[in-house]
Amino acid sequence: MRTLKVNLDKKILSSHEIRIGHNIMDRMVLLIAKNYKASRYVIVTDSNVNRLYGQTLLVAMTQAGFKASVMEIPAGESSKNMSTVMDITGRLLADGADRGTLLVALGGGVVGDLTGFVASIYMRSVPYIQIPTTLVGQVDSAIGGKTAVDLPQGKNLLGTFYQPRAVFVDLNFLDTLPDREFNNGLAEMIKYGIIGDEKLFQLLEEDIHAVKSRDSVHWVKMIETCCRIKKSIVEIDEREQGLRRILNFGHTLGHALETVSDYALSHGEGVALGMVAAAKLSVKMQYLSEDELIRVEHVIAHAGLPTRILASFDPKAVIDCLKMDKKKKDDVIHFVLIKKIGMPFVNGSINEQLIGDVLEEMKA
Amino acid sequence: MRTLKVNLDKKILSSHEIRIGHNIMDRMVLLIAKNYKASRYVIVTDSNVNRLYGQTLLVAMTQAGFKASVMEIPAGESSKNMSTVMDITGRLLADGADRGTLLVALGGGVVGDLTGFVASIYMRSVPYIQIPTTLVGQVDSAIGGKTAVDLPQGKNLLGTFYQPRAVFVDLNFLDTLPDREFNNGLAEMIKYGIIGDEKLFQLLEEDIHAVKSRDSVHWVKMIETCCRIKKSIVEIDEREQGLRRILNFGHTLGHALETVSDYALSHGEGVALGMVAAAKLSVKMQYLSEDELIRVEHVIAHAGLPTRILASFDPKAVIDCLKMDKKKKDDVIHFVLIKKIGMPFVNGSINEQLIGDVLEEMKA
Repeated sequence: MRTLKVNLDKKILSSHEIRIGHNIMDRMVLLIAKNYKASRYVIVTDSNVNRLYGQTLLVAMTQAGFKASVMEIPAGESSKNMSTVMDITGRLLADGADRGTLLVALGGGVVGDLTGFVASIYMRSVPYIQIPTTLVGQVDSAIGGKTAVDLPQGKNLLGTFYQPRAVFVDLNFLDTLPDREFNNGLAEMIKYGIIGDEKLFQLLEEDIHAVKSRDSVHWVKMIETCCRIKKSIVEIDEREQGLRRILNFGHTLGHALETVSDYALSHGEGVALGMVAAAKLSVKMQYLSEDELIRVEHVIAHAGLPTRILASFDPKAVIDCLKMDKKKKDDVIHFVLIKKIGMPFVNGSINEQLIGDVLEEMKA
Repeated sequence: MRTLKVNLDKKILSSHEIRIGHNIMDRMVLLIAKNYKASRYVIVTDSNVNRLYGQTLLVAMTQAGFKASVMEIPAGESSKNMSTVMDITGRLLADGADRGTLLVALGGGVVGDLTGFVASIYMRSVPYIQIPTTLVGQVDSAIGGKTAVDLPQGKNLLGTFYQPRAVFVDLNFLDTLPDREFNNGLAEMIKYGIIGDEKLFQLLEEDIHAVKSRDSVHWVKMIETCCRIKKSIVEIDEREQGLRRILNFGHTLGHALETVSDYALSHGEGVALGMVAAAKLSVKMQYLSEDELIRVEHVIAHAGLPTRILASFDPKAVIDCLKMDKKKKDDVIHFVLIKKIGMPFVNGSINEQLIGDVLEEMKA
């Protein structure tokens, strides 16, 4: 038997910048013109965002001399599937888009995940830029290069790790964000405070009413802190082999609650409840003090997010759903717990009884 | 506007080995056990190959103590699409395959391209191994990490660059390969001689009858040389930004002829004709000597591959088809020509009239 070695170890340059500010669309277009040249630009966006901002961005790009067009997909999670991928791909081909094309994801998590996925597989990849228009997108999903589509069997089951060339966070987009969408992002911001930065947590505690009315003087700083925490974790563990898991704080149980509620709970509401549960578990396992649990519950409640579950929730159904999730990984439920605010850790396995107890306690 | 830099430059370890030999299945399984540990192995193969070798490999792997299973797809290019990707994915999920799963592509180009693609997107990627069973797979498509599926609009339009963990080339598989499939590989071998190694070309010239009857004493050496040329080019230009294009020698016109013939011409026949045309163009543009053109034509003819096209071929239809291909890249048709055997180069643009003349000349 002969052996040939294929030498393909290589340095990959996927560093990029996140730019954050108010009303930055004009500067964004100038920066794209300067730094991210392409033979054509295709703005992928959904029906809601297109109505609000799609044409504005298109006009700005066209005036800057770009060959640009907008491609609209229906708004909502139900678009995040392979049939939309095929639809976008077909339209790109019909338009003659080649490897010199740059995709611009203008929208929330669905548009970002989907556009990133298409970019990673279209003609074996084209570059893309993230312009998140939701709070979840701006502090979380647009950062880190996770792309995905859902399958009938579950969310995000097909996807890639594929970094954008740049992320532009324009806080003006938040002005038109519906409250429930805003709250989804707020849950993530609270998460960042709990897992990554006690000062951010404190700022949220003190300023929660101004934050809720979207006019906190600390707003840019808070968003920037969230982006900084996310990007620092991704820098260390891009492909989610370890540390990146702490970003799932509140999410494991949150997803299960969302699923069992048949999506009556929003993502943010699920995460809020999951964070309360994780904090309570942390107290029960004697990692966290009762005082800090109360601070967690308060900030979540003041943010207008739930801290109690309906009496009709069946803890067993939630635990069964957790086990389904578990099956996909190893034989244990990985739970992110906290030792104090700002100090998370991944716990190897948690007693089902304890989870059941916490869920019972949380009933309104 | 604030700016955060996401630092993601990184070293990627995607070097791997190609192992070549006769009757290596047992050693292959031992090597997999030693070097490519996984929680489970899924052999993806087609209906033809499964009948011949699928069960043998499964038994060998099971006896070695692996948790292994076989997943069969229908044989043929028509399987290389997104609907088969969804089918494989669905079956992987139903079987509980997680990120600890390793896919084994056992088959020709369709199985290899498709399995590699699934591996690159399933749960944001799982590892895979290539075990090519056709000559085209062994000398070409299984090496280099190009994965793809076809779309109704054209071949290989969705895909990734995603390297296998290992490639195993067992020459025994060739014993059962139909002649036309064997000839497809032979056309690629001749291509390697022309673009990469005059000695290989000479060996093919001298030994073509033994090669045709699949019993040349130089067989392993010739296959190894092809693998070595391919891997050396991929090492320099993994993502086809320049040098890798020379692998398309004979393919640009070959694809067009295949398409215009409505696939009455096989891939190898198209490539054979494309190589003759490229050599003729090289002569007409005064790069290549008439003598070397004759050597090219002779070895192709002796290999049982065509050097003449049917009188019914319309050169204009072929050129229109080339332009379609052209559209997908820049504004010029990139043609690979040769200065002599073993010395290819990429020519920026070629006069349509000249292509038409060559096609007319080639009419039987």
